[in-house]
Amino acid sequence: MKLGMWLDAVRRERPLVHNITNLVVTNIAANALLSVGASPVMAYAHEEVGEMASIAKALSLNMGTLTPDVVTAMRIAGRAAETKGVPIIFDPVGVGATAYRTQVATDLLRDVDVTVLRANAGEMSVLLGLAGEVKGVDALQADEALPTAMKHYALASSAVVIATGPVDLVTDGHTTWQLSNGHPLLAAITGSGCMLTALLGAFVGVVPEGSPLSTYAEACVAAITSYNVAAEQAAQKALGPGTFHMALFDCLYNLDSRAVDASAGVEVTGA
Amino acid sequence: MKLGMWLDAVRRERPLVHNITNLVVTNIAANALLSVGASPVMAYAHEEVGEMASIAKALSLNMGTLTPDVVTAMRIAGRAAETKGVPIIFDPVGVGATAYRTQVATDLLRDVDVTVLRANAGEMSVLLGLAGEVKGVDALQADEALPTAMKHYALASSAVVIATGPVDLVTDGHTTWQLSNGHPLLAAITGSGCMLTALLGAFVGVVPEGSPLSTYAEACVAAITSYNVAAEQAAQKALGPGTFHMALFDCLYNLDSRAVDASAGVEVTGA
Amino acid sequence: MKLGMWLDAVRRERPLVHNITNLVVTNIAANALLSVGASPVMAYAHEEVGEMASIAKALSLNMGTLTPDVVTAMRIAGRAAETKGVPIIFDPVGVGATAYRTQVATDLLRDVDVTVLRANAGEMSVLLGLAGEVKGVDALQADEALPTAMKHYALASSAVVIATGPVDLVTDGHTTWQLSNGHPLLAAITGSGCMLTALLGAFVGVVPEGSPLSTYAEACVAAITSYNVAAEQAAQKALGPGTFHMALFDCLYNLDSRAVDASAGVEVTGA
Repeated sequence: MKLGMWLDAVRRERPLVHNITNLVVTNIAANALLSVGASPVMAYAHEEVGEMASIAKALSLNMGTLTPDVVTAMRIAGRAAETKGVPIIFDPVGVGATAYRTQVATDLLRDVDVTVLRANAGEMSVLLGLAGEVKGVDALQADEALPTAMKHYALASSAVVIATGPVDLVTDGHTTWQLSNGHPLLAAITGSGCMLTALLGAFVGVVPEGSPLSTYAEACVAAITSYNVAAEQAAQKALGPGTFHMALFDCLYNLDSRAVDASAGVEVTGA
Repeated sequence: MKLGMWLDAVRRERPLVHNITNLVVTNIAANALLSVGASPVMAYAHEEVGEMASIAKALSLNMGTLTPDVVTAMRIAGRAAETKGVPIIFDPVGVGATAYRTQVATDLLRDVDVTVLRANAGEMSVLLGLAGEVKGVDALQADEALPTAMKHYALASSAVVIATGPVDLVTDGHTTWQLSNGHPLLAAITGSGCMLTALLGAFVGVVPEGSPLSTYAEACVAAITSYNVAAEQAAQKALGPGTFHMALFDCLYNLDSRAVDASAGVEVTGA
Repeated sequence: MKLGMWLDAVRRERPLVHNITNLVVTNIAANALLSVGASPVMAYAHEEVGEMASIAKALSLNMGTLTPDVVTAMRIAGRAAETKGVPIIFDPVGVGATAYRTQVATDLLRDVDVTVLRANAGEMSVLLGLAGEVKGVDALQADEALPTAMKHYALASSAVVIATGPVDLVTDGHTTWQLSNGHPLLAAITGSGCMLTALLGAFVGVVPEGSPLSTYAEACVAAITSYNVAAEQAAQKALGPGTFHMALFDCLYNLDSRAVDASAGVEVTGA
């Protein structure tokens, strides 16, 4: 599988990614998208989110600091995106930490037709009804049955399902990818998962309309691998989480698509 | 024209700049102001924005992630600033991207007496009724008739009008300045225009009360040139957008006012 | 007094710190907590703040960009924290700058049982009814009578009271600590006080339940000293406020608890 070609496509097409994200990562999600060559827009007003989502190439929804107002904005934007065939990425940050978060995530997944569902392994375990554990917004523990549960959910919902962690799992229900790139310093900066959620919008945003779900999954694998290879490069230049964070933007910006292919640690298993 | 003296004045007087800005740039707008020697305050509550704007030396309004609540705050603060003679800078981020943004920008410009109007060239084209194009919050295309339209608008509204891009245009209706400093990496970080909008508050905030509009224009030319010269210096130390961003704060902080005068690329044309 | 052991405890226990903070520092407060080894969560929805505060080890309240909605969230979270014995840190950012801020700070201190009250010296002077001065959110001037007033307030409210500045004052009403670590570059980045307020949550979050107030004060002394020693180290690697900011996260992450003890500038005086 060629992954670097997806990075090239992002840089060539500069897809507009509409983000409804949390207050912690607003700035860095935009910078991650710019660094990789995409065009970010953040818009929250109920008066405009539908129109903005309609002209975007992808809609990235992140419930990190959700409020009822933001949830309403996500629903309006989601409906507009569905109507126009704009793919939707959803990140149920901190699901399981409070009853409200679990309710909102469950409701949104029922009402909005999500193309990509991304969470860390602990959150995904909780969301799929397994015995995961979430402390605040940090994943503590994933469940052993997670890969199988993710496949079932992907098939039932026709979505790409992604659980990130030391090893990242991506499945479209038929094929599962295990991705081993990345670096522990990603866990030492806030919003490293949220930046990935934003980047998934960029890569999914260049998938030709009407492609099968497996193509969206492949774009997701390319997004995660690009991000994680950049993180590996950034860690080599970093003295700690502060310099790592800035080097991460540098390395995303300078990332060679051939290096993505050369460094990719991807293992594929059938369904 | 001496520009560096305006930077010296900002550092000497440390003007309080009240910002009502967007969620993407709240932190970096404050840091840009601190780096240049000004005193930033961010305040949004309807209960206090009037009082805060009244004690500020400038009010900087940026509609990047506007909501009806924020727009109301802008109106209250704007009215208080007008009453006290506090200059107002307005940045209609993303005007033209959605009908709501265009409506809000038009209404605010009708109702609030703006001293400085800053937008990128694409946004300014849309705002002045020309054939510009806006994608999300990124300018795509300016109109050839832009300089003339800006002059007319400046005269009609008694405001300094600024369109930024590879070459920045500043006009008070009588004189037009073309500014050629800057660096392409500014386009690779989010909020580079918004940071400038905040900095315009600092420089306009040290213009003596009762000065003619041409003096405010000169302070704006000094703000833009200082920012862009710092960006040129920062780019020399940067490996990409992450390290550029941090170097930009360093270079603003260390910027020599004589270097601003020595490096300034300013071309003046009569009206 | 051993201070480094508190840093070790934070890293060992990774306390969950629930922050209701301002829009300027949301990202950097979370990163400061992660850098020091704690687990940050930001949550604002009235629907969940009570539950989130209940499971946290500390609740850090910061009114930097307060709105009525955020103030309500602080009250709900504060009540839940009190019920569960979760210590509360309160930072009345900009108190005295507007009547609204002063009212909110006064009301919250009356209604919520705060364990740690932190402000800069100017704000603290205003809050305690002395002749301080506040410009926007910057402290201009503290009052000579401040140390005595702080002791009285600490005794009356059974809280640790902290006024930061070139020399930081910490008192539990019986003992007063004067802390001389730190670096002027802290004043050149926005939110340096707010990051400390977040970090106080991490250190107070590892104080064993039922400890006397003097133990909470000691944890606060350790938090401030750790932060300020990291700032001293960061300044040696910095070329200005941008690189200082990133080095500060690096140095917090790499901070040796023995270096905290070795570098600590702490002077203790009886009540």
